[in-house]
Amino acid sequence: MSKKAVLLLSGGLDSATAGAIARDQGFAIHALSFRYGQRHAVELEAATRVARQLDVAEHKIADIDLRLFGGSALTDNIAVPKHETVEEIGLGIPVTYVPARNTIFLSFALAWAETLRAYDIFIGVNALDYSGYPDCRPDFIAAYEQMANLATAYGVENNQRIRIHTPLIDWSKAAIIARGHALGVDYSETISCYDPTPQGLACGQCDSCLLRQRGFNDSKITDPTRYA
Amino acid sequence: MSKKAVLLLSGGLDSATAGAIARDQGFAIHALSFRYGQRHAVELEAATRVARQLDVAEHKIADIDLRLFGGSALTDNIAVPKHETVEEIGLGIPVTYVPARNTIFLSFALAWAETLRAYDIFIGVNALDYSGYPDCRPDFIAAYEQMANLATAYGVENNQRIRIHTPLIDWSKAAIIARGHALGVDYSETISCYDPTPQGLACGQCDSCLLRQRGFNDSKITDPTRYA
Repeated sequence: MSKKAVLLLSGGLDSATAGAIARDQGFAIHALSFRYGQRHAVELEAATRVARQLDVAEHKIADIDLRLFGGSALTDNIAVPKHETVEEIGLGIPVTYVPARNTIFLSFALAWAETLRAYDIFIGVNALDYSGYPDCRPDFIAAYEQMANLATAYGVENNQRIRIHTPLIDWSKAAIIARGHALGVDYSETISCYDPTPQGLACGQCDSCLLRQRGFNDSKITDPTRYA
Repeated sequence: MSKKAVLLLSGGLDSATAGAIARDQGFAIHALSFRYGQRHAVELEAATRVARQLDVAEHKIADIDLRLFGGSALTDNIAVPKHETVEEIGLGIPVTYVPARNTIFLSFALAWAETLRAYDIFIGVNALDYSGYPDCRPDFIAAYEQMANLATAYGVENNQRIRIHTPLIDWSKAAIIARGHALGVDYSETISCYDPTPQGLACGQCDSCLLRQRGFNDSKITDPTRYA
């Protein structure tokens, strides 16, 4: 039987690639997505398509209402910033940052891992393109892993460490796309846009769209994204 | 204006006491409770009463369905163990343990703290009576605090550390009750029972009831708990 891994799956390009890497490493994937008060159901439809594509053992969607706390353009009624070119993306923490989101997502992944007796959690964070997000940095992930090994007893009991895998953390978007392409990921089924149409078309002007476009350009792989 | 603190509030004896200590230290309390698929609404009614008693600035209840993962008598259809005396409580992790619960609860508290710009989180964990729960130990809390300071940017930006306060962590139940009593906590409004009646009466035989009874006995303070 394959070793089990929990994969945080958003339906975006990064988590699809992280999933393909987990599968390539022989893990049976238990994919976890969230209905977290985001504006669009489009993301969860993409996550469901990608879960099928990755041939996961199981896909769960957890309901957590992060609108309760607010503080982000992705959960509140704040406009997602649009730009003409990738160079216009500002430094610092963007308004699309959701407070403590990865901490919360990883905590749910940890709860599931504990009941599954899985020791491996995959998350497609990337510190390069999202240097403004504190919870995408290697230091954060290392501290999270340290904490996770004290939060649960099953790892210690079985003399195994829980590992948070971040295969993409220092890759460029182009490198992520090239690796996923080599592993057969169909990126037409993913969605990265922060502000898609209800039909699932990407806006082409938010930070996430612009970084994705540049990634496809740089990787010389055809961009299958459907734009509005 | 008072400094803000987020308090994890279950409606039990411990979190009520942690709240009274936070208030005594001059914090404006932002109380956070969870509807997490537990069997009884009784716990949330108690949390609401205690929030009023503590005169909190705000009380939020977050919906998170931990039944999705299972693995606990408090979320699944597993019988809560009953005993005649406190000595019969076994060692090791009890079936009432909810996987990664405190990790998840603290992560929501962290998200709220970040939007509130609060640097203090209070949690009434106790390592003495619940030595079987991995996520009640000082090592876990220290690792969580370390991680929290890397997960968010507002602490670093403002040159302030986020602190996880665990005032009760090494106190006996009797010491907790004595301190709360001195601070004016009305324990008749709290509920500790894992298996209360729908009317909110305590069973008197679960681990939590037995530890609470012993605490009142040892502290020489009259037990106001209403038993079934």
